[in-house]
Amino acid sequence: MSPFTRSRSDSVAALGEAKLITAIRHWLGNVAPKSPAGMGDDCAVLPAAKHAQLITVDPVIYGRHFDDKVPPRDVGAKLLKRNLSDIAAMGGQPTVAVVALTLDPRTSQKWLESFYRGLAACARRYGVSIVGGDITQAKDTVSASLTLLGTMDGRRTLTRRGAATGDWIYVTGTLGGSLASGHHYRFTPRLAEGKWLSRQSAVTAALDLSDGLAKDIHALTPTGASPMIDAAQLPLRSGFDAKAALSDGEDYELLFTLSPKANQAAFARKWRQQFTRTRLTCIGRFTASPTQSENSLNLECYYGFEHLR
Amino acid sequence: MSPFTRSRSDSVAALGEAKLITAIRHWLGNVAPKSPAGMGDDCAVLPAAKHAQLITVDPVIYGRHFDDKVPPRDVGAKLLKRNLSDIAAMGGQPTVAVVALTLDPRTSQKWLESFYRGLAACARRYGVSIVGGDITQAKDTVSASLTLLGTMDGRRTLTRRGAATGDWIYVTGTLGGSLASGHHYRFTPRLAEGKWLSRQSAVTAALDLSDGLAKDIHALTPTGASPMIDAAQLPLRSGFDAKAALSDGEDYELLFTLSPKANQAAFARKWRQQFTRTRLTCIGRFTASPTQSENSLNLECYYGFEHLR
Repeated sequence: MSPFTRSRSDSVAALGEAKLITAIRHWLGNVAPKSPAGMGDDCAVLPAAKHAQLITVDPVIYGRHFDDKVPPRDVGAKLLKRNLSDIAAMGGQPTVAVVALTLDPRTSQKWLESFYRGLAACARRYGVSIVGGDITQAKDTVSASLTLLGTMDGRRTLTRRGAATGDWIYVTGTLGGSLASGHHYRFTPRLAEGKWLSRQSAVTAALDLSDGLAKDIHALTPTGASPMIDAAQLPLRSGFDAKAALSDGEDYELLFTLSPKANQAAFARKWRQQFTRTRLTCIGRFTASPTQSENSLNLECYYGFEHLR
Repeated sequence: MSPFTRSRSDSVAALGEAKLITAIRHWLGNVAPKSPAGMGDDCAVLPAAKHAQLITVDPVIYGRHFDDKVPPRDVGAKLLKRNLSDIAAMGGQPTVAVVALTLDPRTSQKWLESFYRGLAACARRYGVSIVGGDITQAKDTVSASLTLLGTMDGRRTLTRRGAATGDWIYVTGTLGGSLASGHHYRFTPRLAEGKWLSRQSAVTAALDLSDGLAKDIHALTPTGASPMIDAAQLPLRSGFDAKAALSDGEDYELLFTLSPKANQAAFARKWRQQFTRTRLTCIGRFTASPTQSENSLNLECYYGFEHLR
């Protein structure tokens, strides 16, 4: 479904700003608290926060993160889920979000209603309140940027900088072909998994895979170490090859490292008890020098998603 | 200066994503803390917050909030100041911000450097840290959305809902002609004034004027009351008339209400002691029924800025 309409009566321009804001609140329903805790004032007022907080921002832009083939409900959900995946990678719990919307006046009310209902359903599922936003008109554009806050609830924050030479490298789920398969909007953010990982002291670092393993792994790699990835171990999405798994991006899976002191078999057992439906794969290890075993990959040959080119 | 360049070497596409992010951190300098408190991980980690917090989001979009005539330094500052003005209206103190950027690959590095240096200078001035962001490519666009957090530091939060019939209506600064005069990017957000107002118990409500007085005042108007505005009292920007003051928008001045129990003369004296350079004007009062005195305006005849048409 195209976000643009040819029918004047279905356009957001026909509705006007005040009625559009009223409609958005209605579409969001109980995930949009009343002012001053939510929309309706210059700012939303958030309660004091007892523990460390997280903040992240990611957009969805027509022609880049979605097209006419992605149902508008799923576009709304994807906007939140992209940010949830970042919170998941640190082991956090999402709390509140604000949404800045940029719309062509020809944007369809029907499209926008589905978008917001999809966003609301996803927010409800993950306990997120939508507390504020902004709507601006711009030509030929439908885009939204969401800023998400989270809390650590006293848990350890998992960061990208904690891995050491010798650490094992793990990944959740399967990789590759995200755009072609529709995974890029159907994925489930790994919030429960991230929270559990932050409680395991043997887990040393984590990130969420957004630009492809070959590119993203550099952010976890400790100084002086090299990632030795075993191509035979890569958890491939059905129908896609190792190149896709390394380069396609938008996997929204967790990549994390485990201390060599940990018992890998016991760790895998504990994982399976917790997450019966989320695959876990050890794909390699950080080694001191760039050793190339028979199956190991030269990651230089694979490029992750490059945002500006 | 146009944000787009014809020179390939000056384009952000020539720089590439990784180098662009490094450059942005350099341009932001000491207002961009290191990861995990700042950029470089999936989320930024914020400390626990002892007091109530504020959150707001506002964008700048090429062709809407700025054009080739606005120096890029001022575009960067405007992006932050629009949000600072919202924090000011509630009486808060700004703390941290994240920026989601959408760029055409032809965006000029020189333009973007000035934009970020302007943003950084403004952030430094108001004690704001830029802790995170996102960069996405999109055709024919240069836009940025900034989400700003603030703290109340234990003070009372000023909201839009607190005015009662009989309250006096005040406005800071002068109104009208914001676009024509360049005020829309040269303005000073009324942070000190807002903070002081939140400490005065006789001040009952406040907002920042962004869409024009005639439209924005409705958000302060108590049920059953009408705003009686004295046209002769409107603080006009030099060269602009009452219609401009009521309708132009982007004034970024504070509109607030004072209890009739307060001593107006004493209040004005205290204001002048605090703010020697910020004009303060009582422009009217909320009355029980729509009385029309000789000078009072029928606000229905003036429309504020309508965002979607």
